[in-house]
Amino acid sequence: MSDAYTRAGVDIDLGEQITGRIAKLAGATFRPEVLSGVGLFGGFFELKGYRQPVLVSSTDSVGTKLKIAIALGSHYSIGIDIVNHCVNDIFTGGAEPLFFLDYIAMGNLVAEKTEALVAGVADACRKVACALIGGETAALPGIYRGENYDLVGFIVGAVEKDAIIRGETIVAGDVVVGLPSSGLHTNGFSLVRSVFGETRPEMETYQPELSRTLGEALLEPHRCYFNEMKDLRPIIKGMAHITQGGLEGNVPRILPASLMASFDSRSWTVPPLFELIQARGKIARDEMYRVFNMGIGMAVVSAPENAAQIVAALPGAALIGEVAAQTGDARVVIR
Amino acid sequence: MSDAYTRAGVDIDLGEQITGRIAKLAGATFRPEVLSGVGLFGGFFELKGYRQPVLVSSTDSVGTKLKIAIALGSHYSIGIDIVNHCVNDIFTGGAEPLFFLDYIAMGNLVAEKTEALVAGVADACRKVACALIGGETAALPGIYRGENYDLVGFIVGAVEKDAIIRGETIVAGDVVVGLPSSGLHTNGFSLVRSVFGETRPEMETYQPELSRTLGEALLEPHRCYFNEMKDLRPIIKGMAHITQGGLEGNVPRILPASLMASFDSRSWTVPPLFELIQARGKIARDEMYRVFNMGIGMAVVSAPENAAQIVAALPGAALIGEVAAQTGDARVVIR
Repeated sequence: MSDAYTRAGVDIDLGEQITGRIAKLAGATFRPEVLSGVGLFGGFFELKGYRQPVLVSSTDSVGTKLKIAIALGSHYSIGIDIVNHCVNDIFTGGAEPLFFLDYIAMGNLVAEKTEALVAGVADACRKVACALIGGETAALPGIYRGENYDLVGFIVGAVEKDAIIRGETIVAGDVVVGLPSSGLHTNGFSLVRSVFGETRPEMETYQPELSRTLGEALLEPHRCYFNEMKDLRPIIKGMAHITQGGLEGNVPRILPASLMASFDSRSWTVPPLFELIQARGKIARDEMYRVFNMGIGMAVVSAPENAAQIVAALPGAALIGEVAAQTGDARVVIR
Repeated sequence: MSDAYTRAGVDIDLGEQITGRIAKLAGATFRPEVLSGVGLFGGFFELKGYRQPVLVSSTDSVGTKLKIAIALGSHYSIGIDIVNHCVNDIFTGGAEPLFFLDYIAMGNLVAEKTEALVAGVADACRKVACALIGGETAALPGIYRGENYDLVGFIVGAVEKDAIIRGETIVAGDVVVGLPSSGLHTNGFSLVRSVFGETRPEMETYQPELSRTLGEALLEPHRCYFNEMKDLRPIIKGMAHITQGGLEGNVPRILPASLMASFDSRSWTVPPLFELIQARGKIARDEMYRVFNMGIGMAVVSAPENAAQIVAALPGAALIGEVAAQTGDARVVIR
C-alpha cells in the first residue's frame, strides 16, 4: 500500500495477511449450511431442517478478564471464553448454535495475538458444530493503546418455536441442578484485579491450594454445557447462566412471578480459587455469592423426578436447590 | 450494590439504569417476528415467510471515525453509521435486514454517551425495519481510557437462496451505476486524522468550500441504500460496497474472473470534502481513489438496458463505468 496511508497507522498488507490465516481457521469450522465462495461482504448460512425456526442471538465480550490475558501474553483461551459464554447464553433458551462472528480490535494489528484469539474461537466453535462465518479485525490506533485490545463475540442459534425453554412451566416443588463451573468464567474480574492487581509476577506466583499459578487458574476458560445438556432439553424447564450477579442475580430471571429458589450451599464444594479470593480480599460471604458463580456455571430447573438424569449427564453436577412459593422479598436464598 | 465491587470500578446500578433506557429505544424497533418477554439471555426472532432462507450476517465497527466523534462529543451519528454500514454490507448479497445487535464498551459507563449511540442505532434500524434485538454495554476500565470507546455492530438479514446476488452473471458489456456517498462514510479516517489532526479547534473550523465545519462534514453518517434499491434487486447483477480500498479494492470482489471494470471519473462530481483532503494532505490522485470512496458509496452492476431504472431510483446516481474483458493486470481502471 502507498506511503501516506501506511504512515497514518494502517497497514493494509498486514491486514490482508492476517485475514488469509483467519480464513483458514474459520474454514475448519464450516458445516454444510455455510455457502462459501459467495458473500465477501458477509457470511451466508442456509437455514434448513426447522419447521418453525426461532433465531436466538447474543453478543458479549469477556470483560476485564482481558487484562489478565494481556499481562500474561496468553490469548488463545480468551477466544474459547467468548464462544462458550455466548453458546451458554443462547442455550438457556433451548437454542443450538448455528454460526458465530468475532470482532477483534487493537491499536496496531499483532498477527500472533490475532491468530491465537481466532484459533481459540475456531476450536471452541468446532466443538459445538458452530460455523465461524465472519468477523472483523480492526486496527484502531488511538482507541486501544499499548497491549490493550477487545474481542467481541456474536452468536446466532435456532430453536423450534414450540421447544423454546422459557421457565414458564416452573412450579413450586421443582428442583435446581447446578452444573460445575471451571473457574470464574468471565465474571468478577474487576473485583479480582482490585484484590490481586494484574502484574505478571503476581499472576505467575504458584498457589499451592490451586496446584497452579494464580494466572493459570484465573484464565481457565469458560465452560460450555451445550454438548452434555442438549439431549436433555425436553426435561429442562429453565436454565440460568450464572454470570454477573451470581445465583442471586441470574436465577430470578427464569422464575415465574411469586416463586423463589433456595439453595443449600453445603450441597456443592466451592472451588479453592473462590476461597483464595475471599480470604485475600477480606470479602463478605454474601458478596462473594453476588459477584461470583462460586462453582456453579449453570442452574438447571426440572421436575424432581428428572433431576437424577440431569445430574448424571455431567460429572460434578449436583442437586443444589429447590423452587418454592416466595415468602418474603428475596427471590433467591442461599443457606 | 455492595461496596467492594463498586470500588473495583463496576457500577451495577448505573448499568441497570442504562439497560432500562436502552430497552425502550430498542423496543421501538421491534417487528412482529420479535418474541419479546422471553429470552433475557438472548434475542428471539421468528423467521417466517421464506421458502429457502439464507441468513446473511456481518460485523463491523466505524474505525477511527470514533476519534472525531470523541473530539467533538458527538455520538448519535456514529450509531447511524454502524447500522447503515452493516445494512449495506449484507445488502450487496441481496439480503434484507432482520435484526441487529450492538456492543458498546467504554472505560466507565457514561449514560448520555451510551444513550446517544443507541438512539442512533435504533433510529437507523427503524428506517430499514431492522429490529434492534440485543446488545451489550460493557464497562472495561483499563482497556478503554479516558473518553475512548468502541461501538460494534452485528447484523443478520435474509435472502431467498435463488435470489442471492453474487455477481456471477456479470458479463463484458454490463455497466456500473454509482450511488452517491454522503461523505467519507466510515473509511479513510486514519489518513484524514494524519492530515488534519483531531483537535476540537481544527474540527470546529468553518470551511467555506464545505459550507460547514470540517467536523460536521467528517461526521456525516454513512448512507444506507437499502430502501431505494431493494425493489430493484431482480435487475441488479452485483453490488460492491465502496469501503476501505475504494473502487479499486472493492469492485473486483464481485467481478467474475477475467473481467475488469473501467470508470470514467468525469461521469460524477467528486465532493469538495475529498478535494479539501487531497489539497491539504498533498495526496496523489491515485492514492485518493485507493483510500476513499470519492463520492461513490455503492457500485451497482446491471445489464445496460436496466441502468436507467437504477439511475432514476436515487438522486445523484449516475452511470460511471462499464465491464469489459480484462486486458492487463488491473481489474479496475479509473480514467
